Amino acid sequence: MAKSLPVSPLASPLPALGVVPGVRLGAVAAGIRYQGRTDLVVAEFVEGTTVAGVFTQSKCPGAPVDWSRAALKGGSARALVVNAGNANVFTGRAGVETCRLTADAEAGLAGCAPQEVFLASTGVIGEVLSADLITKALPALHASLSETGWEDAARGIMTTDTFPKAAVRKVEIDGVSVTIQGIAKGSGMIAPDMATMLGFVATDAALPASVLQALLTKGVSGSFNAITVDSDTSTSDMVLLFATGYAGNRTISNADDPALAEFRNALNALLLDLALMVVRDGEGASKQIKITVNGAVSDASAREVAKAIANSPLVKTAVAGEDANWGRVVMAVGKSGEPADRDRLAVAIGGVTIARDGTVVEGYDEAPVVEHMKGREIDVSVDLGLDDGKATMWSCDLTHGYIDINGSYRS
Amino acid sequence: MAKSLPVSPLASPLPALGVVPGVRLGAVAAGIRYQGRTDLVVAEFVEGTTVAGVFTQSKCPGAPVDWSRAALKGGSARALVVNAGNANVFTGRAGVETCRLTADAEAGLAGCAPQEVFLASTGVIGEVLSADLITKALPALHASLSETGWEDAARGIMTTDTFPKAAVRKVEIDGVSVTIQGIAKGSGMIAPDMATMLGFVATDAALPASVLQALLTKGVSGSFNAITVDSDTSTSDMVLLFATGYAGNRTISNADDPALAEFRNALNALLLDLALMVVRDGEGASKQIKITVNGAVSDASAREVAKAIANSPLVKTAVAGEDANWGRVVMAVGKSGEPADRDRLAVAIGGVTIARDGTVVEGYDEAPVVEHMKGREIDVSVDLGLDDGKATMWSCDLTHGYIDINGSYRS
Repeated sequence: MAKSLPVSPLASPLPALGVVPGVRLGAVAAGIRYQGRTDLVVAEFVEGTTVAGVFTQSKCPGAPVDWSRAALKGGSARALVVNAGNANVFTGRAGVETCRLTADAEAGLAGCAPQEVFLASTGVIGEVLSADLITKALPALHASLSETGWEDAARGIMTTDTFPKAAVRKVEIDGVSVTIQGIAKGSGMIAPDMATMLGFVATDAALPASVLQALLTKGVSGSFNAITVDSDTSTSDMVLLFATGYAGNRTISNADDPALAEFRNALNALLLDLALMVVRDGEGASKQIKITVNGAVSDASAREVAKAIANSPLVKTAVAGEDANWGRVVMAVGKSGEPADRDRLAVAIGGVTIARDGTVVEGYDEAPVVEHMKGREIDVSVDLGLDDGKATMWSCDLTHGYIDINGSYRS
Repeated sequence: MAKSLPVSPLASPLPALGVVPGVRLGAVAAGIRYQGRTDLVVAEFVEGTTVAGVFTQSKCPGAPVDWSRAALKGGSARALVVNAGNANVFTGRAGVETCRLTADAEAGLAGCAPQEVFLASTGVIGEVLSADLITKALPALHASLSETGWEDAARGIMTTDTFPKAAVRKVEIDGVSVTIQGIAKGSGMIAPDMATMLGFVATDAALPASVLQALLTKGVSGSFNAITVDSDTSTSDMVLLFATGYAGNRTISNADDPALAEFRNALNALLLDLALMVVRDGEGASKQIKITVNGAVSDASAREVAKAIANSPLVKTAVAGEDANWGRVVMAVGKSGEPADRDRLAVAIGGVTIARDGTVVEGYDEAPVVEHMKGREIDVSVDLGLDDGKATMWSCDLTHGYIDINGSYRS
């Protein structure tokens, strides 16, 4: 994107960021695609850092996804290299070679094996990503890394994002204070149930990779995998969670260990924070939509129903138009293909039950719902009345802004 | 819609329509929702008319869908009553009662059983459809029915359609000349693989209901079920095919009878004509998109891949922006969840192969593709290189017009 986009009206302010002992990071303008802004980010981690990751379920993943998925098998991370503006997807052998050259160069600087270097790229698909531009920029970037580089990193990974995304939590494990801090990017090509855009989270807690992976997988299912902007799943999605161990808490070998209760809740909350920032920066978004489904035959079924509502262009345009068009919610439930009984279905918007038992509620007063539709955060809730399956998903409205941004992305 | 929409730039001219002996039809302004236009359509059929139908797969179908699905079991049709502006969906007992009162009134006029009256409604969801408005308008409408009422009927069933849709074919069965003629409506809330919007086709061929049903089901799968405007499936979709028997051809008891070859091809072509008119009147559409998938592991798999491309907001906005963004096609293939191998995938636009074997074609010249993107009919073709499964689907681009129309539908 040459032109810069207006900041989303739903933008979240950047929180006061701290440091995560054992993590140094920074960003530089490598000239990969954009002019006058940073587009290459590096993070380096102390020896002994463990790592967990979740990746796009796309059958056409980018070369960096293949690389990082393979690197994850080692369970150990020393560096992360991320670029914005070119996704290095569908670039054949050249794309694989760019990954190898990048990892080799960074490994040389960080003093580690290439298999401990994680890579992520987002941006345009199908154009060769120059390894030269990256490897030439790495030495100076390496020299500039700092424990306080988080905001620079959050800005350096942005593509069509209109605001930087970061979140932080401080909790205790067995009385030992630990920090969890993360950044994310994402705005379009966002669909749930398949990992996510890019999210990088680090903590100084000491946790083995297996525990980290269990915590991340669980946390992502209720956050990054519960959002959608446009139903389109990226080829480059990735969330990585790094644990440096600096905090020095005792070794914990099970993700369900009660000592992790606070950590787990904080991690889940942080992941949801980041995921909601992506929705709130959804391309063209003017309103956030929260969809709650209850009474489904199972949680999985509730999720499919919620997804059908969250992805429906007609529901999303109705929200954009501030139209409490609950009939389109009924349509979306009907098209989900999940068990539903029209005559038991209830629909509420903004907490007001509009329809119940297959028809509009007697004496339904649209006024408070109309008022709710004028807000920035829209609540849509459906009760299928069948069993106790439930799910929550988040989406955003579909506006002219989405067309503006995506009708001319490459120009 | 109070305001009238500009006619789609893809509009097809209305063909010269003939008569189908045994069918009389007409339209009247019943004041159901719109001002100053017809919104109630009746067709009456001679005794002995057989019927076939396909219906929405929505789990929340409208009351008229329930009614017609039940009526279809009799295999015999004497009348069809269609209204525009109110879908009679999610209207509880009142909606069922409106169906019963409408069918009773029309049966009285046509001199048949209520179970031989077919009903269809489209328009807003969740508002009670007044039986009174309809039953009061029926007697005068009945008196005005004519064999030449086809164009009036095509106009009377429109909702957000910007042009009336009709198609006609004349063929022979065993040397006996027969006519097939049909009308359709549809513009938004159009998704494939689940019956369709509204389509009504009649022929004077003599065909038992079972043969008719086999022909229709087959024909719809390659036409109405192969189009999408916005991935949103209506609660009211229905295609009915009536055969009056006036032509007097010999009785044929098998849809695969060679004597029906010409008829079958003509029916399929007519159904595709009508379906493509719906795509070409897709809300806000400025370009038609044809998506061809080859080399999939099966036809069903090819269809899912084609559907993922056809429904992708990012592909559709790229087409709107005349951007030959084949990377988004790769993304859509990847998100379909169907077997695909990035390194065997080929993508062509406008007949020009852009990418092959996982990377862009050496020396790819974008110029002819850019030129193709400026046209009204865009061809996207994907070869998965796995096996011989294939499918074709049609869609339209996603423009500001879609947002305009659907951000204020009820206002």
